[in-house]
Amino acid sequence: MSPKLGVLGGMGPMATVDFLHKLVDRTPAQADHEHIPVIVHSVPQLPDRMQAIFDNGASPLPKLMEAIETLQAAGAVCIAMPCNTAHYWYEEFEPSAKVPFLHIADTALAAIDSGNLSGACLGLMGTRGTLKAGFYQKRFAARRVDCMITPPDDQQNLVDPAIKAIKANDLARATPLIERAVERLLEQGATSVVLACTELPVVLNRLKPELAAHCIDVTIALADACIGWWQSNQNTNNRSH
Amino acid sequence: MSPKLGVLGGMGPMATVDFLHKLVDRTPAQADHEHIPVIVHSVPQLPDRMQAIFDNGASPLPKLMEAIETLQAAGAVCIAMPCNTAHYWYEEFEPSAKVPFLHIADTALAAIDSGNLSGACLGLMGTRGTLKAGFYQKRFAARRVDCMITPPDDQQNLVDPAIKAIKANDLARATPLIERAVERLLEQGATSVVLACTELPVVLNRLKPELAAHCIDVTIALADACIGWWQSNQNTNNRSH
Repeated sequence: MSPKLGVLGGMGPMATVDFLHKLVDRTPAQADHEHIPVIVHSVPQLPDRMQAIFDNGASPLPKLMEAIETLQAAGAVCIAMPCNTAHYWYEEFEPSAKVPFLHIADTALAAIDSGNLSGACLGLMGTRGTLKAGFYQKRFAARRVDCMITPPDDQQNLVDPAIKAIKANDLARATPLIERAVERLLEQGATSVVLACTELPVVLNRLKPELAAHCIDVTIALADACIGWWQSNQNTNNRSH
Repeated sequence: MSPKLGVLGGMGPMATVDFLHKLVDRTPAQADHEHIPVIVHSVPQLPDRMQAIFDNGASPLPKLMEAIETLQAAGAVCIAMPCNTAHYWYEEFEPSAKVPFLHIADTALAAIDSGNLSGACLGLMGTRGTLKAGFYQKRFAARRVDCMITPPDDQQNLVDPAIKAIKANDLARATPLIERAVERLLEQGATSVVLACTELPVVLNRLKPELAAHCIDVTIALADACIGWWQSNQNTNNRSH
C-alpha cells in the first residue's frame, strides 16, 4: 500500500473541497507526480457534532474512529481533519490512531506564531462547539496572547447562521454575516480574527478586502502544515513505498 | 463499511479538486448529511499516461487497478475517474472492478444528448492520448454527430502547453491558449467544443464569456452523472449501510 496523506473530511463537504484546493494550490509542484498523494474520506453521514456537544445527542466518535481506520487501511501515514468542531473529540480518538494526527489548532498556532504577536489580541470565530472545547483559548493563554471570542448575540445572529448558510451552499447569504461578525470583533479591539471554522474561509475571497486582510485562514494553516509534514517525512514515505 | 462514491483521481490533482467542487456544488443539499459520501484516491504517483501511450513507457494500468481495489476496500459502491486520458485503459481495468465504473465519455454524451444535436458539429479538445483512444469519436459517430478535433498544430502550440500549464498551476498562462484553441475550432465550423480533458474546465470561468458559452464541461457531466447514480441507487445504498 503506497503511503498517502489521509484527510478526514465531510464536515462539511465544501470545507473539505476548500482544504483540498488549498493543499494542491500551495504545494510547490510543476507536474502531477510532484503532488502529495492523498486519500480523502468525506462521509458526512455521522451524528451532528453540535447536538452531541450541547443536546446530549449521539456522539460522532465511533464514526470518526471508523474513518481513521479506513484511512489507515488505505495507506494514510498522517491524518488531517479540516473541521475544527470535530476536534472536540481529539483526545478520545487520537490515542487509537496508529499514525500522526495533526491537531488543527496546533497548525493554526504555528502559522500565527510566525507573525508578530506582541500586543496582539486575537478574535476567535468558530462554532459554539469549538469555542466550548477551548483548545484555541488554551493555546493562546499558553503563549500569553489576548483572545476575544464572538459575543453570544453575534454568535447567534451572525456566525451560526453564516455557517449554516455555507453548509447549504448559500455563499451570498453567508458573506455579509461574516463581514459584520469580523467587523464587530475588530471594533472591539481584536487585531486579527482567527477563522476557526473551516466553513468560514470558503467565502474569504468574497469578503471586503479590508476585512479579509485581518482574517487568519486556519484551513490554509492546516494545508501548509500537511505540506510541511510531507516534505519533512518524504524520505521515510518513499522508503515505505 | 458504509457505502461511498469512489473517486479515482490525482490525474491531475487540481482537476480532481475541480470535480469534487462541482460534485458538492451541484448536489441538492441543505445540510452536511444530505451530501454524497465520497472516498477519494488522489495519488499522482503513477506512470505518465502520455509516455505509455506514445513512447512505449511503463503502463499506469497496475496502479489504476490498485487504486480501484483500495477504493472498493474503503467502501466504494460506484467509481468515477475525473481524467479522460486514463480512460484509454478502461476496457482493461473495468472488467476487474466489482462495482459500476462510470465511463466519462458516456456521462458526457448523456449531457450532450440532452441538448439539440440536429446540425451540430462538436469540436473535441483533449490530450493526444484521449484523441488517439477514440472513445469520444466512436460515440459521436454512433449518434451521427459531426466531430472536429483540434488540428495537430493547435494541439502542439495551444492545447498541450495549456494542459501542462494547468498541471503546473499556472492558470494565467493556460487561459489565452485555451481561448485561442476554442476560437479556432469555432472559426472552423464547430458549434460547441467538448472540453474532454478535466484540466481544461479548471480555467473555464476565466475564459471570455462568449467562448465559455460554447464549451461543454465534461467534469460537470461526470459530477451530474455521479449525483444521478447516487440518487437512483439511494435505497440500495442505505440498505447496505
